[in-house]
Amino acid sequence: MITLREAIKEAEKKGVAIGHFIISTIDKIWAIFNSARSLNVPVIIGVSEKERDFVGVQQAVHIIESIREEFNYPIFINADHTHSFERVKEAIDAGYDSVIFDGVKLPLEENIKITKQCVDYAREVAEKEEKETLVEGELGYIGSSSKVLDAIPEGASIGLDQLTTVEDAVRFVSETNVDLFSPAIGSVHGMMRSGFDPDINIERLSEIQNAQNVHLVLHGGSGLKDDNFTKGTGAGLLIVHISTELRVAWKNALIESLKNNPDEVAPYKLLENSRKAVEEVVTKKLKLFNGIN
Amino acid sequence: MITLREAIKEAEKKGVAIGHFIISTIDKIWAIFNSARSLNVPVIIGVSEKERDFVGVQQAVHIIESIREEFNYPIFINADHTHSFERVKEAIDAGYDSVIFDGVKLPLEENIKITKQCVDYAREVAEKEEKETLVEGELGYIGSSSKVLDAIPEGASIGLDQLTTVEDAVRFVSETNVDLFSPAIGSVHGMMRSGFDPDINIERLSEIQNAQNVHLVLHGGSGLKDDNFTKGTGAGLLIVHISTELRVAWKNALIESLKNNPDEVAPYKLLENSRKAVEEVVTKKLKLFNGIN
Repeated sequence: MITLREAIKEAEKKGVAIGHFIISTIDKIWAIFNSARSLNVPVIIGVSEKERDFVGVQQAVHIIESIREEFNYPIFINADHTHSFERVKEAIDAGYDSVIFDGVKLPLEENIKITKQCVDYAREVAEKEEKETLVEGELGYIGSSSKVLDAIPEGASIGLDQLTTVEDAVRFVSETNVDLFSPAIGSVHGMMRSGFDPDINIERLSEIQNAQNVHLVLHGGSGLKDDNFTKGTGAGLLIVHISTELRVAWKNALIESLKNNPDEVAPYKLLENSRKAVEEVVTKKLKLFNGIN
Repeated sequence: MITLREAIKEAEKKGVAIGHFIISTIDKIWAIFNSARSLNVPVIIGVSEKERDFVGVQQAVHIIESIREEFNYPIFINADHTHSFERVKEAIDAGYDSVIFDGVKLPLEENIKITKQCVDYAREVAEKEEKETLVEGELGYIGSSSKVLDAIPEGASIGLDQLTTVEDAVRFVSETNVDLFSPAIGSVHGMMRSGFDPDINIERLSEIQNAQNVHLVLHGGSGLKDDNFTKGTGAGLLIVHISTELRVAWKNALIESLKNNPDEVAPYKLLENSRKAVEEVVTKKLKLFNGIN
């Protein structure tokens, strides 16, 4: 079975991006896996700190590993937005394929310092264990909640003068030695109630990509117009995160299911509609990210 | 860590019953585990064929095994109501702690024949592997859906002349050599909308228990008045199944959560209310089954 590092290299060669989808329920995991498998593309399941606590830090890894082994399929698990070294360490010890230290609200020096501590620990464990955990670093605050938004999150870096600069990106990556890097290039966590979110800045993305050798990740993919992804993968995006669109599909389908089946009480029957709705959204996104018509 | 067989022996010594709770979502697993752990009693998680398909036959085992190992806690997993030898074999191969062949709708001869085939296969695997899967057999149809019922399920054996006879029980157990046995003693799957379900027949339960040496299981525990459990454990019940009451608690709490949080879209936040509601029901039942005030 290929590793996440190998899957990313493969995506780079092909000029496509791997879809990363956040979950906190088992029905979503199967929706995402079934969609990816039907398109024969690798996929990453993401769990942020609160999702990890809900599913179980270790249990989330066991579920994904057992699917990977049972189906001999490249499905990976990422410990998304992790706000302390202690919780990054916990994820590395639990065997996650990748982990993100999210220090975007810290001063640059402090963000670099803790991100480097995470990278060093991951390398140390990788030398002893057979398995490595990739480490992602982030620069630039882009909001923090996967919700339907009435306004751009306060303090989010989406204006041209607030995007991650090439200079900061190069410094951050070279000083931390991260495997994956997510700069602020105009996307926000969550999606706008009014319709499409502002476009990402492809020029800045390309400049950052050309200035140094690191794998680029886009957070806050929900709500973006389709051409952001086609242009973004062309400019070097290798992983794209989607959360809010899945949450909205899941919730709306569940409300419909409860309304249409007033006497049904079995969770697996009530959630079947959500599983299908999530699978549809994932399939649409994976086709976009992987250039499949 | 003790095995399920050892946990049952322990329950027998203490004159208590182990709670068995059906799940198809991860939030329910944690609700049940947290409740059992706070009371320091062993617990069994059950997944029938459809729940297994929803969670993943192998994934369900991996989740429970990883909780058992992480917390060094006696939590077990049972492949509930399985209707063919093939699916019993699948559960044994996947490493379930126990499996039920449900042949209650078959003629007695046929039920005995397939149940025995399941027992033989389980023993064969147990000799080769370190781990054994206990096999449960059933006699007497008691309905098949875990729902809120307007009437006793058609054909359910709850009248005195329809309960499992001592003669049939002794024959079934001795010819199949099952580890666990569930006779029809008056309970039904599901629970009555009108309130409490009819009482179980403690006398018949005692007669069956006294006539042969096998561990007795009660299905369809939802809706029964509390004293059924206290009397039942006294008469030899070692495992009690609850499903519908958890489903109802889960669904009602979810509807309330959706109503009170119209802008929330995160499944783990929307399901938190259900997790708590299920934990409350489980705690009430576990106290009853284990004689805890």
